[in-house]
This record gives sequence, structure tokens and C-alpha cells, in this order.
Amino acid sequence: MKLMQLYASLKPELQAIEDQMARTVTSDLPILSETSLHLLKAGGKRIRPVLVLLAGKFGDYSLETLKKVAVPLELIHMATLVHDDVIDDADTRRGQLTVKSKWDNRIAMYTGDYIYAKALTVVTELDKPRVHQILSGTIVQVCIGEMEQIRDFFNVDQSIRNYLRRIRRKTALLIAISCQLGAVATGAPANICNALYSFGYNLGMNFQIMDDLLDLCGTEKAIGKPPGSDLRQGNITLPVLYALREDSIRDRLLTEIEAIKQSDGRADSSAAVKLVRSSKGVQEAERMADRYIAKALKALDSLPNIPAKRNLTDIARFVAKRSY
Amino acid sequence: MKLMQLYASLKPELQAIEDQMARTVTSDLPILSETSLHLLKAGGKRIRPVLVLLAGKFGDYSLETLKKVAVPLELIHMATLVHDDVIDDADTRRGQLTVKSKWDNRIAMYTGDYIYAKALTVVTELDKPRVHQILSGTIVQVCIGEMEQIRDFFNVDQSIRNYLRRIRRKTALLIAISCQLGAVATGAPANICNALYSFGYNLGMNFQIMDDLLDLCGTEKAIGKPPGSDLRQGNITLPVLYALREDSIRDRLLTEIEAIKQSDGRADSSAAVKLVRSSKGVQEAERMADRYIAKALKALDSLPNIPAKRNLTDIARFVAKRSY
Repeated sequence: MKLMQLYASLKPELQAIEDQMARTVTSDLPILSETSLHLLKAGGKRIRPVLVLLAGKFGDYSLETLKKVAVPLELIHMATLVHDDVIDDADTRRGQLTVKSKWDNRIAMYTGDYIYAKALTVVTELDKPRVHQILSGTIVQVCIGEMEQIRDFFNVDQSIRNYLRRIRRKTALLIAISCQLGAVATGAPANICNALYSFGYNLGMNFQIMDDLLDLCGTEKAIGKPPGSDLRQGNITLPVLYALREDSIRDRLLTEIEAIKQSDGRADSSAAVKLVRSSKGVQEAERMADRYIAKALKALDSLPNIPAKRNLTDIARFVAKRSY
Repeated sequence: MKLMQLYASLKPELQAIEDQMARTVTSDLPILSETSLHLLKAGGKRIRPVLVLLAGKFGDYSLETLKKVAVPLELIHMATLVHDDVIDDADTRRGQLTVKSKWDNRIAMYTGDYIYAKALTVVTELDKPRVHQILSGTIVQVCIGEMEQIRDFFNVDQSIRNYLRRIRRKTALLIAISCQLGAVATGAPANICNALYSFGYNLGMNFQIMDDLLDLCGTEKAIGKPPGSDLRQGNITLPVLYALREDSIRDRLLTEIEAIKQSDGRADSSAAVKLVRSSKGVQEAERMADRYIAKALKALDSLPNIPAKRNLTDIARFVAKRSY
């Protein structure tokens, strides 16, 4: 409820960001406009723009400046999704056909490249080298994270540290810098920028762990696809890694995962999902997620008591809520 | 000969750029270092770094500054090649296995993304927003050019203007800004930057037309693959478009191209190649290429008479030489 109020109060700014995103990806080549706008229309929570706007309240707030951070961040996120869908061979996302499914893999690859490049043209309008450096450095980390995900497919021997490092790159960093850059771009003091980065980082870690839990514990209706899709594609997530540590579960779970691997993703993962759910893995992953959200909230302590601080707290509490 | 002397005289600077490129793409993720260094080792003429260095002689020459332009430009070029190889389903390039062939398409996609992102981290070290703007704007055009190429596969009705616009984006712009940014980054006056841009643009147009001619008229030894590979993948180039304008050739050539299209690229394109060679298409494309090189040389007129001007003239003459 609080979150809906927040979205409502930010509506004009979010709409301005949405418009700028649409203008940015509109090309004189119809196919690129079509694929890009198709992605935009699919929507999303626009969590990165919301965080940029709120972080901007801690500096010298300017929508014009913040747009030049929020638009590229959300577009870069979208570009990674398009490439992800190629890798994952995904036909739908958020209930819409993916670009690779509605068009093809080649078009999806270049659409990703194009959106990514367009995103960068927006940020170059900002005369802040530090913003460019943070952004480009993070994109490199995201790429490494994507590649780690491929490398780690079906690797049942990976450590939990390995999982955490991967989701840090894949998810948490882009959320961390959404908070950080909103503050940096509006000239907030360094200690505030750092606190916001820390908030975003821990929020992002929680976010990905909760997402991985949802894929195992959610209903088909809530997820939009049958549970266990991560396992079907070989993505070994935190609850699975914890479950593999249980002697009474490990061997049966390994057998199931091996069967999925051998079947090239066409197998049913429901037996594996059931095993993980019956283990302590879910609870332990939840505990880890809780620790991250506590750290996120802690990072807010040092921030001045402006309404945006309250909003960030609300967002953290909402993200951390179990939706399964 | 002159060109070999030029390369020899630039050797320390080119080596410094090569080292920086290797350092830039070295990652803590072995697979990314492997794929990226595999690409680097395949070599290439490094024409973009050479142009950056020469253009820098017209400003306040600084290798440190020029490296931050040359490295990203060459890396971005490499990133587009990796993605091209996915699209073209190419197994070798410069006699080496491509990333998509030695590893796979997914790895190639992320390797391209990664090299591209790494390239941008280098340029952000340069506190020149204008350089960032020119670079990111050009990358967008390159992406559009790549997509146009897919769109135009097997389109025998495309205009010559359409072809020229495509190669402008696909090839000429990155060469144009190599010249321009070398001068911009070292603070050369605007009229010099513009003249160098114009030189590079016309050189790049010539370069691509000559490359397209080579694919039709070269020997298998010179090209490194059987002639006609453009046609086999549906890429309709300038000599083919001219040949299609000849009444005595058109129908037979259309039939051959249609056969290639129907065979999904597995057909022999030698009959089509023979038809184009027997037409006036080759000569007309050569004339067009000559016009671009004349314009490139003309653009140099206004530049001060320093040795670099002589070097650029030599490069233009060398690129324009028929190697078939």
C-alpha cells in the first residue's frame, strides 16, 4: 500500500523517464524501434528509476539530471534481459513474447547492442566523468556475471560464496549504483553516496535471493511459468546449494539434477523442486535474504531524516516480503 | 613499402596500444580472458589505432591520451566482429577459429558485450565529454548498420543509396571518428578535426567497397575462403547491384541469387560470382571506390604539411590499391 502511494507520488517523474526511454530507443530503422518499444511496453517495476529519483533527493534534486542517470540504467537493464533471453532460450518474459521469440536470436542480439549503445548516449550528456566511470565499470561486472552464470550452469559443487559473487554482479551492482548515481549526479556528499550504494547493494542481494526462492516456492500463477525454471536451465541457486548440504537430500537431488542436465532442459524439474522445498534450504536462504535486508536498513541509519529515507525503508520492507 | 616503413616507425606506440588492449580485456574470469585474448592474438591491420596516432600529430601529441582513444576504438571494432560472426555463422576469421566456433554462440555474445563494455571503461578515463558523445553516437550508428545488414539480406531491389548508407554505418563511421577523435582528444582546431573526419569517412567507404570487390574478384588464397561468401550469406554488395542493372545479366543473376537463398546458404555461389565478374559491375564499383579515395585525398588538402599528412596519403593510396 505504502509502495503504491510512493509510485503514485512519483508518477510525473516516472512518466517523464518513460517518455525519455521511448524517445531514446526510437530509431529511423523501424525494426529497431519495434523491438525496443516492444520491450518498453512490457513494463516492469522500474525499480532502478525509482531508486535514482529517491537518491536524488539527498542531493541537489533535478529531474533533468536524474533522467540522464535513470534512463540509461533502466535501458542497460533491459539490454541485459534481451541477451539473457537468447541465452536462456526464453519465449516469454512478464507474460509477453521475448524479442528472440517474436523475431529471432540475431535480432535480439543486435537489439540488445543497440539499446545498450543508446543508453550510453544519454549518459554522455552529463558532464560528470565519475558517473561515466561508475557506470561503465559496473557494466563490465554485469557482463562477467552473465558469463559466470553460463560457466556455473549445472555446477553442483559451486560454493555459496560463488553464488553470492555471481548474483552480486548479475543483479546487486546495478541496483547499488542506481542509488549511488542518483546521489552522485546531484552532488550529494560522498558519505551519503556511499551509504546509498551500500543500501542498494544489500537490497539487490536480497532481491535476487528472493527471486530465486520465488522460482522454487511460488505458484505457477505468481511466477508466470511452472516453478523450477532455474533448475531446468541449470541455474543452481542458493536454496538448492543449501539443500545439497543435507545428507538425507543430497544424493536424490543430485540424481534429479543430473537427469535434468541429460535431458537438455526438457525434463520435468518438479521432483527436484519438491526435494529442495522439503529441505532446510528454503529456510536458510530466507535467513540469508533477511540478513541482507537488515544490512540495507542499517545503511540508511546515517542518512538525514528526509521523506525519501522513509520511502527507501518501505521499498526494502516490500522487496523482502515473501510472496509465496 | 611506404606502409611498412610507417608501421615500423609507429611500432613502439602500436605495441603500447596492443599491451593496453591486452591488459584491458584481461579479466579475473579465465574464460573471458581466453576468448578476448584469442581475438587479440588473431591480429589485424590495426588501421584504427594507426589513424588515431597520425591524427594526434595534428594536435598536442600525447601517447597516453591517444591510447585512451585508440584502445576503445579497436576493441569496439573487435566486439562488432565477434557479434558479426554469430550472425554470419562464421567459423574462421583471419585464418583463426572464431569465438562462436571455438566456444559457442552464447559465449561469443557475452564476449562481445564484455569487450565492448571494457572498451568504454578506458574512454571514461578521458575527461572530454565531446569524445564520449562522438563515440557513443557512432556505436549506435554501427548497431543500426548491423541490423540494416540483416534486414537487407537477399534484397535484390535495394538501391545503391541503401548500400552506401549501410556501409557508411557498418564501416566508414568508425574509421572516420578514429581520425577525428585522435585530433579532438589532443586539442587540434575544429577545422582540422573536421578535415580528418572527412578523410576517414571517405577512406572507410573506399575500404568497404574494395573489401566487397575482393570477396567477388579475389582468389581463394587472397581472401582466405572461397570467393562469393557475401553472396552466400545474402549480402548484396555494390558490384552485384550494378550487375543487376544490366539487362543481359539481370535475369540469370536473379535466378542464381534465388537458388542461393532457397538453399539456406549451402549453395555454390560460383555461377553468380562469374556473372558479376562478367558484367560491368566490377568496373563501376571500382569507379565509385576511386571517387571516395579522391575525396579522401582532397580532404587532406587543408591540413598543415607535417609528415603525418604524407602518411595519411600513403595509407589512402595503399587501401585503394586493387589486390585482386
